[in-house]
Amino acid sequence: MNAEIIAVGSELLLGQITNTNARFLSQHLAEIGVNIYYHTVVGDNEAQLEDAVILAQKRADLIIFSGGLGPTKDDLTKETIARLIGTTLEYNEEALQSIEAYFAKTGRIMTENNKKQALVIKDSIILKNDNGMAPGMFAKADGTYYMLLPGPPREMQPMFLNYGRPEILKTMEKVERIESRVLRFFGIGESALETEIDDILMKQANPTIAPLAGDGEVILRITAKHESPDEAFRLIQQAEEEILERVGAFFYGYEDTTIAAELAAKLKEKQVTIAAAESLTGGLFLGELTAIPGTSAFVKGGVVCYTNEVKEQVLHVNKETLDARGAVSAECAKELAQNVRKLCDAHIGISFTGVAGPDKLEGQEPGTVFLAIAFEGKETIVHPLKMAGSRAGIRKRTVKYGCHYLLQLLD
Amino acid sequence: MNAEIIAVGSELLLGQITNTNARFLSQHLAEIGVNIYYHTVVGDNEAQLEDAVILAQKRADLIIFSGGLGPTKDDLTKETIARLIGTTLEYNEEALQSIEAYFAKTGRIMTENNKKQALVIKDSIILKNDNGMAPGMFAKADGTYYMLLPGPPREMQPMFLNYGRPEILKTMEKVERIESRVLRFFGIGESALETEIDDILMKQANPTIAPLAGDGEVILRITAKHESPDEAFRLIQQAEEEILERVGAFFYGYEDTTIAAELAAKLKEKQVTIAAAESLTGGLFLGELTAIPGTSAFVKGGVVCYTNEVKEQVLHVNKETLDARGAVSAECAKELAQNVRKLCDAHIGISFTGVAGPDKLEGQEPGTVFLAIAFEGKETIVHPLKMAGSRAGIRKRTVKYGCHYLLQLLD
Repeated sequence: MNAEIIAVGSELLLGQITNTNARFLSQHLAEIGVNIYYHTVVGDNEAQLEDAVILAQKRADLIIFSGGLGPTKDDLTKETIARLIGTTLEYNEEALQSIEAYFAKTGRIMTENNKKQALVIKDSIILKNDNGMAPGMFAKADGTYYMLLPGPPREMQPMFLNYGRPEILKTMEKVERIESRVLRFFGIGESALETEIDDILMKQANPTIAPLAGDGEVILRITAKHESPDEAFRLIQQAEEEILERVGAFFYGYEDTTIAAELAAKLKEKQVTIAAAESLTGGLFLGELTAIPGTSAFVKGGVVCYTNEVKEQVLHVNKETLDARGAVSAECAKELAQNVRKLCDAHIGISFTGVAGPDKLEGQEPGTVFLAIAFEGKETIVHPLKMAGSRAGIRKRTVKYGCHYLLQLLD
Repeated sequence: MNAEIIAVGSELLLGQITNTNARFLSQHLAEIGVNIYYHTVVGDNEAQLEDAVILAQKRADLIIFSGGLGPTKDDLTKETIARLIGTTLEYNEEALQSIEAYFAKTGRIMTENNKKQALVIKDSIILKNDNGMAPGMFAKADGTYYMLLPGPPREMQPMFLNYGRPEILKTMEKVERIESRVLRFFGIGESALETEIDDILMKQANPTIAPLAGDGEVILRITAKHESPDEAFRLIQQAEEEILERVGAFFYGYEDTTIAAELAAKLKEKQVTIAAAESLTGGLFLGELTAIPGTSAFVKGGVVCYTNEVKEQVLHVNKETLDARGAVSAECAKELAQNVRKLCDAHIGISFTGVAGPDKLEGQEPGTVFLAIAFEGKETIVHPLKMAGSRAGIRKRTVKYGCHYLLQLLD
């Protein structure tokens, strides 16, 4: 089944709101094996909508509309569809009663234009609106299905999942399930990772493997199609194993996890406590780690040593180190990590010092970073890093490198 | 000028990401009086893209593309457009050099497919990519303009604002300017603010005033239309004055600023230094403040005192306070603020202690927060707060309250 999504609303074209409905619908249609080939957005304009529908009729088996079911004169989706498929609108008793009940309940006066929301396409299947007044519709004409949904996500989403999607499933003979899994990598660039797994990417058909980059990470989405969910799962599993054999060293987690969340889980599992000295990152590392509930069991705390004064007085970095090597140095990073570990009585001390930019610091370029890890009873390791990009990007990636090296160490 | 936006990317049709680019572009095009009639999304598929372009050519003077400029085989936007307008691609020396420089700087190996990103449409105007490798393009053929932008928002947005939009403006003869201004408020709810300015909202025509809520803030966008930018500016100015007369106490800044950025500017202006003791917020406050360049002049640093151990040993909170009152108490907040100020030798010490949730702490409900501000030579002020919402929301809003109270104090 091939489908298209048409969102109706001038507020979308004016950039006042984002078309999140298209994403929501696409995601849930993909799961039941419906292919989406186009998203279109048109304004509250009958001629534009008509053009979009006529075009979609030539390409799709199912056209899903969101928006334009409200009470105002601007709302013309159902009027336009009814006309184009040669039928009319009629009042739906149930919808009319529920609109009246809504007004009675809220004590507001029902104006005449609200009744318009109870008008539905003749002979269509009505999709109940549990969170608003305008019902949805599902109609068939000349071999094409039409599903009309309201625009507000809080009305549209439950209507689609509870009433809309089941109607689509009824029309499908064989449902090909699409299962997908997201693998997350850090410490390797997108093209380097693609080069490593180029032959796997080339031969892909089922499952497909789509790389995405973002915020210094690489994300692979493996998607398999099969009538049997078990078989789809097996296909994904097999592709994952092949990929991780090559680039497993950079893999850190699945789906929507973050590298900080993975680190938190690992610290908890290993019962290892941590403290951080944050110069460059200014609190971001601990801020991200403590975003996760229950972190007080293993995050002791730390020091934001933004100035050399605090490095010296609170974290007791040697004055000679600061004078001779500077704050942006491997030596300073080392002392910071060791001393914050002792100060906070933690198993691990980690430190971040460097130049976030935009200006140079101590004659060093933005992106020059030293990250040190002091582990109780082990030699302190310093990781020098070189990064490009904005101040925000450098700081964020430095935090991720911290998580990355700690995960490697704890494994 | 009539425009359409075509986003290219199968990940959009699969519902993996939302088409936020269309909204961003629409919003900024509306401001310069460019009308957008359609948004379209197509997959990484040449035939589909071609159909969409041929259709858009019939309707639009300007077609803006986002996505499909990357290094992989899937990326085919510029190839398709070049073919459709009867031209070819050629290497752009500057882009090639900046890609090579990027790899040289980061020390990573440049793979052959990265070079593909330096291929541009012959005779097009190149739009520099300050945040990535693929340059954008602006071409004209047979009376239609084509603008090609990269897909990742962090590359696309600055490219469009700095290089893309100015090219569009050059092609326009008479522009009915739409000027807009965003006012940002914190410390007042959306409906409370709307009630305060209800009569101003009711009478609006030109300018229009649109309230938006987000992340504990209220945002008002004032938009005026006029051929003369001066007159549009005057209309906005007048509306702003009327609004601020009523709710100016909660106003903190314009456009895309953040309350942390406003605080940083104020600290700099007043030459006041600050240190923070962060329990509840775990580093978020200093992390946000140090996100702003040049903050080392007034941010001394601080302590992330996530555990009571660190509160006692590093920040010397009295054991009796912790035993008798608990860490989540006005007394603890007060000592933390005073002691971190002294420890870091700053003019101001601020502290954040409380319950982020989801679980209770010391028998207190999530959202119970104490925020204290110790100012050299003044009495320490404690602000008790009660918040609802998620762990992340409570932490973020606590940081904003910190900025809000500091701004009030410094004014």
